[in-house]
Amino acid sequence: MTKQLKGIAASDGIATAKAYMLVQPDLSFKQSTIENADAEIQRLHSALEQSNSELKLIRDKAAESLGEEEAQVFDAHMMILADPEFTGAIENKIKDDAINAEAALKTVSDTFIATFEAMVDNPYMQERAADIRDVYTRVLAHLLGRALPNPALIDSEVIVVAHDLTPSDTAQLNKRYVKAFVTDIGGRTAHSAIMARSLEIPAVVGTQSITADVKEGQMLTVDGLTGDVTVEPTADQVAASKQEAADYAAQKAEWATLKTAKTVTADGKHFTIAANIGTPKDLDGVLANGAEAIGLYRSEFLYMDSAELPTEDDQFEAYKQVLETMSPKQVVVRTMDIGGDKHLPYLPLPEEQNPFLGYRAIRISLDRDDIFRTQLRALLRASAFGKLGIMFPMIATVPEFEAAKAIFLEEKAKLIADGVKVADDIELGMMMEIPAAAVLADQFAKHVDFFSIGTNDLIQYTMAADRGNEHVSYLYQPYNPSILRLVKHVIDSAHAEGKWAGMCGEAAGDPIMVPLLLGMGLDEYSMSATSVLKVRSLMKKLSTADMKALADKAITESVTNEDNQKLVAEYTK
Amino acid sequence: MTKQLKGIAASDGIATAKAYMLVQPDLSFKQSTIENADAEIQRLHSALEQSNSELKLIRDKAAESLGEEEAQVFDAHMMILADPEFTGAIENKIKDDAINAEAALKTVSDTFIATFEAMVDNPYMQERAADIRDVYTRVLAHLLGRALPNPALIDSEVIVVAHDLTPSDTAQLNKRYVKAFVTDIGGRTAHSAIMARSLEIPAVVGTQSITADVKEGQMLTVDGLTGDVTVEPTADQVAASKQEAADYAAQKAEWATLKTAKTVTADGKHFTIAANIGTPKDLDGVLANGAEAIGLYRSEFLYMDSAELPTEDDQFEAYKQVLETMSPKQVVVRTMDIGGDKHLPYLPLPEEQNPFLGYRAIRISLDRDDIFRTQLRALLRASAFGKLGIMFPMIATVPEFEAAKAIFLEEKAKLIADGVKVADDIELGMMMEIPAAAVLADQFAKHVDFFSIGTNDLIQYTMAADRGNEHVSYLYQPYNPSILRLVKHVIDSAHAEGKWAGMCGEAAGDPIMVPLLLGMGLDEYSMSATSVLKVRSLMKKLSTADMKALADKAITESVTNEDNQKLVAEYTK
Repeated sequence: MTKQLKGIAASDGIATAKAYMLVQPDLSFKQSTIENADAEIQRLHSALEQSNSELKLIRDKAAESLGEEEAQVFDAHMMILADPEFTGAIENKIKDDAINAEAALKTVSDTFIATFEAMVDNPYMQERAADIRDVYTRVLAHLLGRALPNPALIDSEVIVVAHDLTPSDTAQLNKRYVKAFVTDIGGRTAHSAIMARSLEIPAVVGTQSITADVKEGQMLTVDGLTGDVTVEPTADQVAASKQEAADYAAQKAEWATLKTAKTVTADGKHFTIAANIGTPKDLDGVLANGAEAIGLYRSEFLYMDSAELPTEDDQFEAYKQVLETMSPKQVVVRTMDIGGDKHLPYLPLPEEQNPFLGYRAIRISLDRDDIFRTQLRALLRASAFGKLGIMFPMIATVPEFEAAKAIFLEEKAKLIADGVKVADDIELGMMMEIPAAAVLADQFAKHVDFFSIGTNDLIQYTMAADRGNEHVSYLYQPYNPSILRLVKHVIDSAHAEGKWAGMCGEAAGDPIMVPLLLGMGLDEYSMSATSVLKVRSLMKKLSTADMKALADKAITESVTNEDNQKLVAEYTK
Repeated sequence: MTKQLKGIAASDGIATAKAYMLVQPDLSFKQSTIENADAEIQRLHSALEQSNSELKLIRDKAAESLGEEEAQVFDAHMMILADPEFTGAIENKIKDDAINAEAALKTVSDTFIATFEAMVDNPYMQERAADIRDVYTRVLAHLLGRALPNPALIDSEVIVVAHDLTPSDTAQLNKRYVKAFVTDIGGRTAHSAIMARSLEIPAVVGTQSITADVKEGQMLTVDGLTGDVTVEPTADQVAASKQEAADYAAQKAEWATLKTAKTVTADGKHFTIAANIGTPKDLDGVLANGAEAIGLYRSEFLYMDSAELPTEDDQFEAYKQVLETMSPKQVVVRTMDIGGDKHLPYLPLPEEQNPFLGYRAIRISLDRDDIFRTQLRALLRASAFGKLGIMFPMIATVPEFEAAKAIFLEEKAKLIADGVKVADDIELGMMMEIPAAAVLADQFAKHVDFFSIGTNDLIQYTMAADRGNEHVSYLYQPYNPSILRLVKHVIDSAHAEGKWAGMCGEAAGDPIMVPLLLGMGLDEYSMSATSVLKVRSLMKKLSTADMKALADKAITESVTNEDNQKLVAEYTK
């Protein structure tokens, strides 16, 4: 029976393939008393061996399709299976307590996990606890005769169906075979959605019920442009979806011709389309899509991917690589944006009632200027290798910006005194993401070199609605006239002082937002690398004079978010 | 040795008296095995009897000084002491387990508390758990020979010193003897500070260390105007403080002459000074201080003081009482503002990462329109008894206001159809506390009858800083030019449409804010009743033309909160 589901379109593209259920099977069991310990130990060994051969296979596949580094986690798992301390303890438990292998495995695993997790200061041991948890699940599944999903073993075209995708799930997906994915939960800004766009795999998230509505092997059509998912499509539907996929491929081909083109509007005005990155690994996508700059380098990934505070040299190497690769194009690095929903295991932050309204980003950097100075020194040293911009996140007041700038100038002077080469054209800017700063943009404009508008936070504070809270998700309104007025004031204020204004939130690549931003004169649009060509293509069709009229209307006449969605549709049809 | 401490001035006035330490003594003990159960049971009985006579004394004192209702909690405590199920269980525990009375008392109390607390749907039983906890503490103190503080027994002039004051602590304080209080923690908007202002007791909060720095009975001078606390003041200091207290009393006497006066500025302009209330009980203070209206009736107290959703009739009675008492002066009732940090035991809300940015106030009312309609019907019925205004909290978008208004009109039509008398001049307004609404005030002004600016929330969202989070408390900046610009835009937008604008946050009674608000033309100032006369006196000294020049400068030239504090000081000295 054909079934139709609607989710949130999270990553462009259309695909048809069989469903692969990335869903944990039921692994519940009861503890029982056993008579024959030897037979039970035999059962254990058989499960251990099955787990080991499975892991060997997964490991080889992962090494082949994803690289040696991704595969190493499975080596760690096999080492645990081979560790007599672990397996011996399970055997003893079976013998001594006369309990079934499942229960013995659980007791021993729990003890190991608890021991490792207690070493809170040792991230290495923390990871070992996660490994034991994975091994436990695998051996238990074999004991119970259940099949675990092994995404690394996928070797035919599938559409992955999951409740949600974790970073470790996605790390195991082979792009060659995974044609799309569909999840129960999540929104456009969820980890899984961002990952899908960066892998350029079509994705629909937040369907609520896909894991319940689909069975392993059923055919699916996934439309990542509209959010439609069809289970067991009819032949006609498959044909229609193939046509759409072909149209989309043609459109992508047109976009591809724009890779080396400048971004110009229909009336010949130039704007900068830049890309957002998290790590130097993202540079491939940036180059492949012809971004004209990096408008946002999220430096917190350096901190989050590390087991301790990254050293000045570690940071220097990362920044240098990005600056050199992009040179002479500008790279804007945002200083550490930790706190809120981003935590570092080695930097304990206070428990907070409302972390999004709490101790985060520049508020931490100004308080912990030891960490901040290390980052600024690394950036200053790297500045000699390209064109650097630095911006501070979560600036609410002018004195905060001035304090950050003063620390920057101190470190710059120290490095120069030490004979270190430092660029003289570093631009210092700030994120515009707090309403107070946006309202006072004219005063800030006298102090900064540029503004970069962060829409996610600006919207969440302006609307007083946590962007991750489903109960108030209707208030995430990027086109609300109040948001547009603040954005316009930021842009106008920058221009009045001869400075530039960019936007580095998701909205900068949004086809409804771009015409409005163009109309307001935004200078730089920084987005996922995969959106660059689409937006460049869109801009070619828009005239700045028309868009100015559109933006004026959106700001002065419109009352609601929906008013502006309709208005843009009228102006750009 | 004289010692000087500095805290936050939380409630006006100056006092000198002996310290009364409202501090829990150390009640730690060890479980031990006992030989002679009878002797131990004897110890228990002696502690039970001491507790009982103490409670009887406290009960009588509380009835005398605070009223029968406040005293009833102690009846409940005495009933527990007299309950053979409770005391018998402790005796049995001593005999059966051969443990000391302290340990037996603890085990039995814990069991009772756990049993009552498990009845999560029964608020009555939840309160019984709290009673048992109190009784446990009292009996344990007697077993250990420690003295518990009994604030209800205070019968000479004292200054109460505490780590923090809970609502139940303050309920026991007799204003006749408590001349001031000083706490370790809290800020101007803490419960204890608000309570102090409503009792008109001088208070200094947030001293960090007062409970460590003072001993029972030491002399203290507390200046609730400056936040200074002197431990063991010198004779000169006592004299100086007496002089200050006399000056302050003279000032209060001047204010008292203003009780029946209209509020007029130096140049003869009239503005409305209104009061904020939580329950009909607060009306005495409103009348005593000559407020010209009630600008904010926080209706959520009706919900918070109840064990289940208050009925339409219960609400009607409360609203009617306030409207009748104040008539013909206006009473603005804010509809239920639950969520954020305010919870109802009988209305479970979702767990949220950032409750201040979550499901609260009008967002709940529009979702749960059964609750909302009941409240609106009660208000409509009460409207016949005075001059009613209704305002909706946490409005972010025009469609939200329109949806709330539509429900109001539906219920109004139904009541009229049923022949119920309903006033025809009810004003419908909204809280201005979300930046999006403030930015778009010109659009909102076409839909409302009035605006009431809520500064606490407006500041917290605009600055992206939780007002209760000490790590970002430096960002609570009422005079920040960004806040003032939003306030100005709200006022101007109201006036452009012939509507009025008020403010009902703490800032409306703040002597630095009032000159600025006057300069911006704010129509109504709603504050703690105890601030009314002070502000009326202040306004007499200010000219609107001067204040307009001040406000213009504060908005266009100032960059920081501090700039504006200085500016106001210059203009009003």
